[in-house]
Amino acid sequence: MARKKLYLAGPDVFLADARAVGERKRALCWEFGFEGLFPLDNDEDVGGNAPRIFRDNCALMQQADIGLFNLTPFRGPSADVGTVFELGFLFAQGKPVYGYTAAPQRYRERVARSGRVVEQNGPRDRDGYAIEDFDLIDNLMIVRAIEDAGGVIAAVENAGDGTDGDPLAAFRAFTACLGLMRRRILLPEAASPRTN
Amino acid sequence: MARKKLYLAGPDVFLADARAVGERKRALCWEFGFEGLFPLDNDEDVGGNAPRIFRDNCALMQQADIGLFNLTPFRGPSADVGTVFELGFLFAQGKPVYGYTAAPQRYRERVARSGRVVEQNGPRDRDGYAIEDFDLIDNLMIVRAIEDAGGVIAAVENAGDGTDGDPLAAFRAFTACLGLMRRRILLPEAASPRTN
Repeated sequence: MARKKLYLAGPDVFLADARAVGERKRALCWEFGFEGLFPLDNDEDVGGNAPRIFRDNCALMQQADIGLFNLTPFRGPSADVGTVFELGFLFAQGKPVYGYTAAPQRYRERVARSGRVVEQNGPRDRDGYAIEDFDLIDNLMIVRAIEDAGGVIAAVENAGDGTDGDPLAAFRAFTACLGLMRRRILLPEAASPRTN
Repeated sequence: MARKKLYLAGPDVFLADARAVGERKRALCWEFGFEGLFPLDNDEDVGGNAPRIFRDNCALMQQADIGLFNLTPFRGPSADVGTVFELGFLFAQGKPVYGYTAAPQRYRERVARSGRVVEQNGPRDRDGYAIEDFDLIDNLMIVRAIEDAGGVIAAVENAGDGTDGDPLAAFRAFTACLGLMRRRILLPEAASPRTN
């Protein structure tokens, strides 16, 4: 049976060593029984060509069986918007979606930490927008989409060495999520009547 | 002919007067020839029930013919992630999508203004992530999706009165976008051979 293809979404594409990160993530996918599809926004062939990058990413998502999303906060209290666009895209196609993050705190804690909270019928930011308080790690559309599609979010605390955006924590969360996905998606098949 | 239904996505749902904002936006849609569908995350009936809010929003998106997105930056240099999830969802369904924003600056300028830029093969933030530089107002997935789906983004400078997140600027941008949509979507029909 062909391996299930995972679309590997995340701000990883913006890293200086994006290609190496992608190769490492694809190797980990293979180890866990999947095939990883890693978009390369900054590939030499397409560098600087926004329409081409967009079309290539959409084509790669069309090929995928499952979405796996790096939800680690990016330039603010929430996940990268490019990643979240892709989450909406794959969810709308009815594909299973999973997430991982190196920031297990609740969303409201991250917004509060930015120091912009006033009380007015519940917590609001300085612009008067209510701060979502559903005890979730990010905006409810993100978390509920993953749960509704039968997926899970793996959260791994970063090492606490003072480094924001610790790439190793994101790798640990990624690996933890692959382990969960293997047990939920692949092992039930291995545990069919014939092998019991 | 039935009016085309616009799903009105945006962080407006977090405003203290979300219901009034929604009513005003729906009235504007009607004035321009459309029917507005406004999600009410904080409606008394569903307040605090994340799974219910998620399902209601998805059901409202299924009903919509077109998506109209408030892309004004929210708690960071990019649009609200809940809004962007919905953009991915409606784009994947092949529906036309339009956007508006009260922040016409380029994305790279907004990130640079946060003062976290280093030079290393192009501009990078302090975590080493490249700062997208496609001369676009936000992440390329957002802007390209709208352009690929035949839509446009209306940008209106806010009044410069020092108020971040000036809600009137967002209203002006919303109204400007409705005007563009009317000309592109409704007036070509009015200008059919019979009426010429």
